[in-house]
Amino acid sequence: MKLDHLGIAVPDLDAALEFWRDALGLELVDVEVVESEGVRTAFLPVGDASIELLEPIDETGVIARHIERRGPGLHHICMKVDGLQSHLNQLNAAGVQLVDHQPRPGAHGKSVAFIHPKSAGGVLLELAEPGEKA
Amino acid sequence: MKLDHLGIAVPDLDAALEFWRDALGLELVDVEVVESEGVRTAFLPVGDASIELLEPIDETGVIARHIERRGPGLHHICMKVDGLQSHLNQLNAAGVQLVDHQPRPGAHGKSVAFIHPKSAGGVLLELAEPGEKA
Repeated sequence: MKLDHLGIAVPDLDAALEFWRDALGLELVDVEVVESEGVRTAFLPVGDASIELLEPIDETGVIARHIERRGPGLHHICMKVDGLQSHLNQLNAAGVQLVDHQPRPGAHGKSVAFIHPKSAGGVLLELAEPGEKA
Repeated sequence: MKLDHLGIAVPDLDAALEFWRDALGLELVDVEVVESEGVRTAFLPVGDASIELLEPIDETGVIARHIERRGPGLHHICMKVDGLQSHLNQLNAAGVQLVDHQPRPGAHGKSVAFIHPKSAGGVLLELAEPGEKA
């Protein structure tokens, strides 16, 4: 299980890039709008993981609500796994509270599922499996 | 610039390990008490970065205060850099607000410095340079 990316909620993606890309010197490799989540995302690699900046594109999405409640900042972490459904079954059997009991389609053709922060010490944890199968 | 670790504030390290090590299956490689910061830390590798669980050992440390104010969860991220002082000088010149203008000793013999969350979109960002020099 490896870290895939680290999601950071930002009110303004262009302003955020002034820090992460321009001041810090990270490379911006991809900007993608994910309409279903109400976000515009930017990926900046940091070793074999990435930073994902998440800007709300409407007021009802999860990132807009997160910024309203908690302010901008760290939002979630995502681990890359093989056999996502089998991981979910094991976690469920271990009493871990899941947001998604089955994988659902995520960005970049991945299958993803979220674990509830109540079971992960306040951390919103995403598990993602790369694949053509999504 | 690569991700070194991701710090997670936990009220109880042993309870947190029941999730991150036992349920999720991550390997625990190191537990260290850092008296000066008032924390007990545990490192669990996730690819070429690590998750650092941070448990307060007294009520006055930064992690105790973070948990009191914000609850448990994601606390900071740390990037590995070469030439930390030169990075700090460049960031300062670019108008970035620094917590530390000079590197100070961190865990594992590293030199570390923090960037203020005001300049990093609400993220507490640590820069760390490995070295015998610390």
